[in-house]
Amino acid sequence: MANKLLVSTNLEDDSLYKHINALDQDGQPLELWAITERLLTIVLNGREAVTAMTIGDHPECLAVGFLLNQRLLEPDDVITSIKTDMEDGIVLVEADMPDRNTDETPKRRIHTSGCALGTLFGGVMESLDEITLDQQQTLRSSDLRNAVRKIEAIPSLHKKTGSVHRCVLCEDDQPLIYMEDVGRHNAIDKIAGYMHLNGIDKAHKYIYATGRLTSEVIIKTAIMGIPVLVSRSGFSALGIELARQTGLTLIGRCRGRNYQLLSGSERVIFDSPESEPHQDKTA
Amino acid sequence: MANKLLVSTNLEDDSLYKHINALDQDGQPLELWAITERLLTIVLNGREAVTAMTIGDHPECLAVGFLLNQRLLEPDDVITSIKTDMEDGIVLVEADMPDRNTDETPKRRIHTSGCALGTLFGGVMESLDEITLDQQQTLRSSDLRNAVRKIEAIPSLHKKTGSVHRCVLCEDDQPLIYMEDVGRHNAIDKIAGYMHLNGIDKAHKYIYATGRLTSEVIIKTAIMGIPVLVSRSGFSALGIELARQTGLTLIGRCRGRNYQLLSGSERVIFDSPESEPHQDKTA
Repeated sequence: MANKLLVSTNLEDDSLYKHINALDQDGQPLELWAITERLLTIVLNGREAVTAMTIGDHPECLAVGFLLNQRLLEPDDVITSIKTDMEDGIVLVEADMPDRNTDETPKRRIHTSGCALGTLFGGVMESLDEITLDQQQTLRSSDLRNAVRKIEAIPSLHKKTGSVHRCVLCEDDQPLIYMEDVGRHNAIDKIAGYMHLNGIDKAHKYIYATGRLTSEVIIKTAIMGIPVLVSRSGFSALGIELARQTGLTLIGRCRGRNYQLLSGSERVIFDSPESEPHQDKTA
Repeated sequence: MANKLLVSTNLEDDSLYKHINALDQDGQPLELWAITERLLTIVLNGREAVTAMTIGDHPECLAVGFLLNQRLLEPDDVITSIKTDMEDGIVLVEADMPDRNTDETPKRRIHTSGCALGTLFGGVMESLDEITLDQQQTLRSSDLRNAVRKIEAIPSLHKKTGSVHRCVLCEDDQPLIYMEDVGRHNAIDKIAGYMHLNGIDKAHKYIYATGRLTSEVIIKTAIMGIPVLVSRSGFSALGIELARQTGLTLIGRCRGRNYQLLSGSERVIFDSPESEPHQDKTA
């Protein structure tokens, strides 16, 4: 079992932030750091998959993770080369893979049918139906609480610049892969890409993130085969519905001991009895 | 001058939230409300413009505001009909308008040129260059502070369900148009659509929002011709750069008296001297 942080944001990389001269509410000078946003185009076998707005670190992880989580690339496909040009903002991924019909994007709407959830998400719901998440995996509340404490202690863009989302792959009470980005989707895609490129097994892992638990993040987590997703933030009704259909354990508004368990309670061991003040319901 | 709230979220509309049975951190039952997310397709003159994930209120405002802010529709174009079918999740907008070349989406990347900001955003930067924001408009810190107090007192999905962004059109210390959505882009588009459909003039107005001040929100505000944008949240370096190029007054991390003034300080009158504790830098 891994027992230390494998990767986190490299704060030495000064392309990730810019120095800003501002004023405070009294008109007094204020020096700040602001997060970089830049465009990155991801190309698979010569075909543009997406142009995303990102902070720009771990471009290979973002590219591979995005392609995997959109199911444009399957885990068994052999990646033969990844070329990154951050000057031009492009990642070229080449892979040996069967010719799949990628005309249907995952969220492509089926106009002719009704508006039940299953038809709205068409292909993605079919994908989720194929996924079987580990039913035996457990999560101790005490481990989660300790993991959150360790995560808060990691030097981060969150502390330096703000305005980023964090996404962390954990095992027991240990953060393993810590990624940040302006888009919460990018942060989770970087986790997926790092896991794939470094052969990190999904067994016994869970994700702690800071963004809201909306449908997209839940779909990505399920496609990654990770059975537990925890967020510091809130959730949508559709996110909960998707988690319940997929058998994903979903926890919202978690800032340590207190949280709201929305789906998959059978995996949770409630062993963190000490009380703490309740968090803000509307966070 | 308008002196009261014209529109806010209708909390009587129970399609906007769902009742959720959950557990707390001790395994005890917890009853919650979760925000609805649904797909809405916006069609202009028979052509699909976008399918957005939204909470579903004010669909006509969202559709018209989106089309205006993407410059697919110009303010002078005459809207001849708007048909909404929330069952099928579609808004059909018909307008008398010249045949414009809409093949180039605003953020279409120019692959062949360098990565300077002006080329990255191609068409949008050209649009922004055409915009002249009112240089005479002022904002008193005391008015902003009072407006934020009034905004916090408005009954909202933010308080009932969390997980939504708020966007408010204000004049002096008065909130006028209050919109919420899961996407901060949708909330500002709804403001633009409401203003257009109800003939609300942009003169002397400013926007207070809760989402991060990233490039997209700044571009939308500039296209709306609103010269002041304030957010409760942080910002990106690119957002600040765009605001400075456009002459937009940009204020971040504003939760009442304290804030960070990032661009366009000539419009601000610093008249709110009483001190309050500093807010969290990383919000």
